[in-house]
Amino acid sequence: MKIDIDRARLTEELDALGAISQEPSPVTTRVVFTEADVEARTYVKKLCRDAGLEVREDPVGNTFARWVGENPGLPPVGTGSHIDAIPNAGRFDGTVGVLGGLEGIRALARAGYKPRRSIELLIFTSEEPTRFGIGCLGSRLLSGLLDPDAAGARTDSDGVTLDDARWAAGFEGPLAAVRLPTGYYSAFVELHIEQGPILERRNVPIGVVTAIAAPASLKISIVGEGGHAGAVLMPDRHDAFLAAAEIALAVERSARSSGSSDTVGTVGVCQVFPGAVNSVPSRVRMEVDVRDTDEARRDSVLRQIEQACEEVASRRSVEAKLELINADPPTHCDPHIVDTLIEACGAHNLALERMISRAYHDSLFMSRIVPTAMLFIPCQGGVSHRPDEYASPEWIAQGALILAEALARLASE
Amino acid sequence: MKIDIDRARLTEELDALGAISQEPSPVTTRVVFTEADVEARTYVKKLCRDAGLEVREDPVGNTFARWVGENPGLPPVGTGSHIDAIPNAGRFDGTVGVLGGLEGIRALARAGYKPRRSIELLIFTSEEPTRFGIGCLGSRLLSGLLDPDAAGARTDSDGVTLDDARWAAGFEGPLAAVRLPTGYYSAFVELHIEQGPILERRNVPIGVVTAIAAPASLKISIVGEGGHAGAVLMPDRHDAFLAAAEIALAVERSARSSGSSDTVGTVGVCQVFPGAVNSVPSRVRMEVDVRDTDEARRDSVLRQIEQACEEVASRRSVEAKLELINADPPTHCDPHIVDTLIEACGAHNLALERMISRAYHDSLFMSRIVPTAMLFIPCQGGVSHRPDEYASPEWIAQGALILAEALARLASE
Repeated sequence: MKIDIDRARLTEELDALGAISQEPSPVTTRVVFTEADVEARTYVKKLCRDAGLEVREDPVGNTFARWVGENPGLPPVGTGSHIDAIPNAGRFDGTVGVLGGLEGIRALARAGYKPRRSIELLIFTSEEPTRFGIGCLGSRLLSGLLDPDAAGARTDSDGVTLDDARWAAGFEGPLAAVRLPTGYYSAFVELHIEQGPILERRNVPIGVVTAIAAPASLKISIVGEGGHAGAVLMPDRHDAFLAAAEIALAVERSARSSGSSDTVGTVGVCQVFPGAVNSVPSRVRMEVDVRDTDEARRDSVLRQIEQACEEVASRRSVEAKLELINADPPTHCDPHIVDTLIEACGAHNLALERMISRAYHDSLFMSRIVPTAMLFIPCQGGVSHRPDEYASPEWIAQGALILAEALARLASE
Repeated sequence: MKIDIDRARLTEELDALGAISQEPSPVTTRVVFTEADVEARTYVKKLCRDAGLEVREDPVGNTFARWVGENPGLPPVGTGSHIDAIPNAGRFDGTVGVLGGLEGIRALARAGYKPRRSIELLIFTSEEPTRFGIGCLGSRLLSGLLDPDAAGARTDSDGVTLDDARWAAGFEGPLAAVRLPTGYYSAFVELHIEQGPILERRNVPIGVVTAIAAPASLKISIVGEGGHAGAVLMPDRHDAFLAAAEIALAVERSARSSGSSDTVGTVGVCQVFPGAVNSVPSRVRMEVDVRDTDEARRDSVLRQIEQACEEVASRRSVEAKLELINADPPTHCDPHIVDTLIEACGAHNLALERMISRAYHDSLFMSRIVPTAMLFIPCQGGVSHRPDEYASPEWIAQGALILAEALARLASE
């Protein structure tokens, strides 16, 4: 079977999808259930229908596009990723797995391949945590790892609930109906850009992911005492922002001193209130992200951050409240699918690197209900979550090719 | 002459003005040229006209309400303050000087007093720096200390220029026409809450201000390198927010180690971009306020902050740009007006405290073109720039009484 990826068409579709954004080019910003997100969904669904796939959506907006197999009663093979994007992001994170998966399916069809099992392309809702403060909303609900009622009641920074937002975007029905039973799919493979520098540095086109790092995120709320910046003397202050500054530096220190370069800790969000040059900050809201391939090491960093919060709050007489948003265990990819991916690379003479994923993905949650693995392709300079994120048409086509080959093998089993 | 301040009416008017706000009670937020600011101006102008004052406005919206004296050719006596309020503020900052001044004028009229010189109540535009990043816009322009073209081109965080904002609010004409000649007034007195704890602690009703501290403000822009919070390893990072955190702590350290408790340094604004939990911060914007009664000591703190910026930026390989927004010299109040205020207290048997103002006021700029002094009244707990800012009706009435007495003496000269 000769699988022929249409590189020009795939590039064009990625460009068109990247241009659907809340901000002008070259920035892609596509936060879940915004107008841009809904428009992007419409665009991708049309492409899927044009390819002859059967499209359905669940109550949280996860989208399933199925190429019905010769034996439609068998659990299908799944593939896919996400199309939402954080503010000021690029065009390839997530979208390569969605449009690359679609082009893989089209290429298999063009090659005359007939799948025994159905092959289903998934577009997961809100892999990015931007709007509702927790990543992988869609895949967490699919895998039953998030309580549907609690999820529906989550609010964005304007106080809009997830339920209200999904209804406004046209997704009805109870969130409890999103969950898929274990074994719903026979296998799941996600294609994604590496979001790190290794493949490009080593000039290797394909990464076969064997494990996904364990992510955790925290919200820290600090309440101090406001006042006039001219009138409140320094020793009388309980400045919420200075406490936040110390805690942020403690996050960095804890991550750097974990003993492993795999540990990362980031304060990506810091909002200062009231936010006036002549006011002592009375309140700060921070969001912290900690990841590691080793769960125990990550949790030890979380404990150090908690201790730093307590120490700083007590010394500065401010109140610091720490809320653990999520602390997911790492996942080890399914050995059989990993082997299948490696064989697929062999069949097309492409070099591969076995690697771990430091970024987390919907695959982390899919792995709870279905044997899962991931394919990485290089991205320039390891850069991601920025407008200059870039993967070459060649890299993307190579990823789509190996994915198609692996899907064909898995759907024939 | 028996001056009878109508405490109930003044309290009612302060409450009514406080309720004109961008946010619901008890919060007062009234940023310059917002709908709330315009509505508040309309309210105060009506009160002035009802009191028989002649009202005029200048191109930046400074408002002048004149009680015409028996010798209208003489330079008038000025009084007044501001009615704009920072986000999440209280009801008394500025407004006590405006409505207290108006009630003082009404009380003098009720007492049958006829001023020789005109008495003019001023409402200064944008004493607070919230919107355009610089405080005392109105009084800086009145005193010729701010270039009119540069002022008009200043932008708010949405990119709206001061010129566009004032035109939208109905204030036309060239900003160059705002400037008043030296000697336009014979004297200027501003009544204000102390915004510090001294008067209340010592149970003294009146503060006579002899000097106003020297304020300075800085904008610091930090540009680092963004990236995915999972994928960029700690040693490879150039996190703009961690640099900002170190600089903020350096501001605190420099202010605390100046050798005087009069030195204060505050980072009141810190905005982090792109502001997503899973993104390494690429850019931060901070605003810093430094004040002292001693200009040299303040400037030494500014230099330390600059050095800290350089050191942190170099160590973290980020770019830190520091822009001095203003660095005003302190002012010493006019001895004759200070004496008049002290005599007015004596005439009404009210204790007084000579003090310096750590907060800055429009008086700082008025003092460049007219002999100026200030009157303080206590505020509860020294609290200001917060919704729980409070001055009792008795304190306010005592302030208005001493102001009226002093205005009468100055207008008879």
